[in-house]
Amino acid sequence: MFITFEGIEGSGKSTVMGLMAEELRLRGFDPVLTREPGGSGLGRSLRSILLDARTHGISGRAELYLFLADRAQHVAEVISPAQEAGQIILCDRYCDSTFAYQGYGRGLDPEQLRRVNDMATGGLMPDLTLLLDLPVPCGLERAGRRNKEAGTTVSEGRFDAESRNFHERVRQGYLAMAAEEPERFAVIDASQTAEDVMLQCLSAVEDSLRRRGRGLE
Amino acid sequence: MFITFEGIEGSGKSTVMGLMAEELRLRGFDPVLTREPGGSGLGRSLRSILLDARTHGISGRAELYLFLADRAQHVAEVISPAQEAGQIILCDRYCDSTFAYQGYGRGLDPEQLRRVNDMATGGLMPDLTLLLDLPVPCGLERAGRRNKEAGTTVSEGRFDAESRNFHERVRQGYLAMAAEEPERFAVIDASQTAEDVMLQCLSAVEDSLRRRGRGLE
Repeated sequence: MFITFEGIEGSGKSTVMGLMAEELRLRGFDPVLTREPGGSGLGRSLRSILLDARTHGISGRAELYLFLADRAQHVAEVISPAQEAGQIILCDRYCDSTFAYQGYGRGLDPEQLRRVNDMATGGLMPDLTLLLDLPVPCGLERAGRRNKEAGTTVSEGRFDAESRNFHERVRQGYLAMAAEEPERFAVIDASQTAEDVMLQCLSAVEDSLRRRGRGLE
Repeated sequence: MFITFEGIEGSGKSTVMGLMAEELRLRGFDPVLTREPGGSGLGRSLRSILLDARTHGISGRAELYLFLADRAQHVAEVISPAQEAGQIILCDRYCDSTFAYQGYGRGLDPEQLRRVNDMATGGLMPDLTLLLDLPVPCGLERAGRRNKEAGTTVSEGRFDAESRNFHERVRQGYLAMAAEEPERFAVIDASQTAEDVMLQCLSAVEDSLRRRGRGLE
């Protein structure tokens, strides 16, 4: 099962993903935890280019193609092999981030985005996408606190520095996509505690498995 | 005028480009010399990833998207501004390298390649493409000598290490594209001395300008 975590900055994706992995391990599973950008060897080189606040000069299209290069390598090197091995994959950001950020956020044509994305992934979509939704000011406040605690404004700095309006468009984009594909998306209220968010995510996973006639026990 | 130099490894593109730039400067022009990958700040980071012999593990699709990221940034940062300034642009590799190497060489679908390439460039094509053509064994021998003299097998090592068959497919691909677009392409016999190749290139530039009712004097 290929599960992706999506949401704006500060929605708590990586924290919740870590908690869910612990829970899955208690139940005897061996989940693969990965992320975009940066889930492959190539991706780690690209991640630093993409997230570095100093690379402000990157054009919208160059940025898009870097994310897609990362994704193509990630699918080939990490996701497809884990699927073939029958593992549960928990992935922090995937295609929907491209549609939300480059499409709804930066205004690139959605049809073109789908086409170039499909060429990068060979059409591989998640079985379930957990959208951690919360108001933009809460997310940015959390992300700002995290960066301050990490003593850096560089690591995830570029997107956090985007205008509030940009993040609003991204959030609304995510919600619109979730409404279009209710079978694949579960929208989770991410303003709760991380533990509560994780429990809701877990029950969305169980619902999704039940719909395929399987379970987590 | 936007002029690209294309050809297999060892065809002498950068040497001939340098000689042509000198000749153009003698005639009072101020040409911009650039190349792909690596013509922009972002591109220089990507060039080392792409050409490094150690990055053998990159999937075909990831490689394609890295070249396109480089190209998108190169168009935005270097080529379009030089065009607007009315300069002559001499560019070592551009779109046709993608069609020849990723399409004819690696077998990616040509229609998809055109689409994703057009999205990267916004449809910007060269006014003239100089195809420096020579037999594969000559090219590989030259490229091997160059790498040995430079004391490195790393810088341009990855493609040189490809199979002889791959380079044959690339060469034949270039010739096929030149036959399809005779107005844009000039095929130059690159087995001559660099000086003779340059003079033939220069006369192709003059022909192309004459067809537009302009000249180099």
